[in-house]
Amino acid sequence: MYPKKIANDTAEVIQNYLTYQAVRIILDQLSETNPKQAIWLRQYTASHNIQKGESFIEGLMGEDKELVMRILKVREYLASEVMEFMPQMVRHGISQANMEHRRQLLERLTRSSSVSSTSSESENDDSNPNCD
Amino acid sequence: MYPKKIANDTAEVIQNYLTYQAVRIILDQLSETNPKQAIWLRQYTASHNIQKGESFIEGLMGEDKELVMRILKVREYLASEVMEFMPQMVRHGISQANMEHRRQLLERLTRSSSVSSTSSESENDDSNPNCD
Repeated sequence: MYPKKIANDTAEVIQNYLTYQAVRIILDQLSETNPKQAIWLRQYTASHNIQKGESFIEGLMGEDKELVMRILKVREYLASEVMEFMPQMVRHGISQANMEHRRQLLERLTRSSSVSSTSSESENDDSNPNCD
Repeated sequence: MYPKKIANDTAEVIQNYLTYQAVRIILDQLSETNPKQAIWLRQYTASHNIQKGESFIEGLMGEDKELVMRILKVREYLASEVMEFMPQMVRHGISQANMEHRRQLLERLTRSSSVSSTSSESENDDSNPNCD
């Protein structure tokens, strides 16, 4: 496995995601304060790939420098607010979800095992409940 | 702003992403150890939405329980390996990228400002370099 490469890729995914969330926040704010600009930004984001945060910002630079400054500021704020507890949140989330999936797996195995043993008792076939 | 909701959404995005990376790792491993199963898993991931990690795992449960167990284990390992330094990595990444974007903005402003002042000198028009 190559955790270093995966760590870098994960950081990039989060950076893009926080950029997207920053734009959403600004859209919400503009809807209240400057509906015309909100419509413009909504159209701009719909026609440009916001999943690539850095290229999105670079493109917007030629259109509206003030909006770019605002996105930079908001995503920096978001990173400072949400990242601190992210390691615990993600580890906990995966651990909980894994536990639930394992419980379901066990339930399926138990079910198919009891079905197999019933059919095995009645038909005496060579089915192996552990192979399911 | 609503950082709590964004923190939860971000954690979900990371959980999905680490599940995707776990599947990629297992695909790489299977290509070496069990090419037939690697082909099967590649086809399965191509025809099922892997971006929704939990539903992907639930779907796979009906097909191959052993593979599901493996994905759970690998994504748990990945979370324990890559999340620790994620807050610093993301904050640093955003800070660096912001610095670069601000540098570019300044460069554009300086350029357009000097163009404006040149044209203003020669034509004596009313362009305002600070409005760009």
